[in-house]
Amino acid sequence: MREAIALSMENIDNGGGPFGAVIVKDGVVVARGTNRVTADNDPTAHAEVSAIRQASRALGTFDLSGCEIYTSCEPCPMCLSAIYWAHIDRIFYANTQYDAKEIDFDDSFIYTQLSLDPTKRSIPAVRVLGDEAIAAFRKWQVKEDKIAY
Amino acid sequence: MREAIALSMENIDNGGGPFGAVIVKDGVVVARGTNRVTADNDPTAHAEVSAIRQASRALGTFDLSGCEIYTSCEPCPMCLSAIYWAHIDRIFYANTQYDAKEIDFDDSFIYTQLSLDPTKRSIPAVRVLGDEAIAAFRKWQVKEDKIAY
Repeated sequence: MREAIALSMENIDNGGGPFGAVIVKDGVVVARGTNRVTADNDPTAHAEVSAIRQASRALGTFDLSGCEIYTSCEPCPMCLSAIYWAHIDRIFYANTQYDAKEIDFDDSFIYTQLSLDPTKRSIPAVRVLGDEAIAAFRKWQVKEDKIAY
Repeated sequence: MREAIALSMENIDNGGGPFGAVIVKDGVVVARGTNRVTADNDPTAHAEVSAIRQASRALGTFDLSGCEIYTSCEPCPMCLSAIYWAHIDRIFYANTQYDAKEIDFDDSFIYTQLSLDPTKRSIPAVRVLGDEAIAAFRKWQVKEDKIAY
């Protein structure tokens, strides 16, 4: 965790946000990430997502079972979902989402939005062409050499 | 939407999952994305996240206000959160999360997990060293040339 915190401090000087994350497998650091949203013009480049991408590349797999993530701040819903998709075993965090809100990184807004019925969310979602899109799922179902995850 | 659906079909033949997304600004397609999780060993490479990264790069900004996303399937919580962080105006989707569950892409599990109290989730989260990590937030607060988002 001290390494994740050090990354969060350094990243401020490097034009990024005050967030760092480290992924560990079998006691060894396999990836590091920092928040590069504004530095790289990538709204998905949170520290945890960056670390997950790097760990997957380093280990040659999309399945990070057996890994732990140390993040300098409690994951936002995007990062927490990415942690689920990556099958990471355990999360260690230091600052909380409430600490983050105090410096104007308000992910509690997104947690609230996700818990709402889709018709009640602030970004409208409209369903169209479901009858055409389903063809891709049918094609996937009968594909023999697909990789599930 | 027909372009997003076509991407979802093609991507199956290209070793990816059955998902495609297109981002539009002022009636013009600015980015396309497909699901490359298994193809690129990147658990965050869902179609929407891939399209958001590409749109941000193409437009040179992390703020996609004024854009709409057309996705062949209802966004998972990671992608929906990314859409919020990117400030996209509106979502159009075709297949639903229930259609996705039928072909074993179960993001409803993650929606449920996110709605739980953190202590009740299947991936444990442990808080450590909050007293040390807060230094990065204090440093951020007094930084004068920071870029908020």
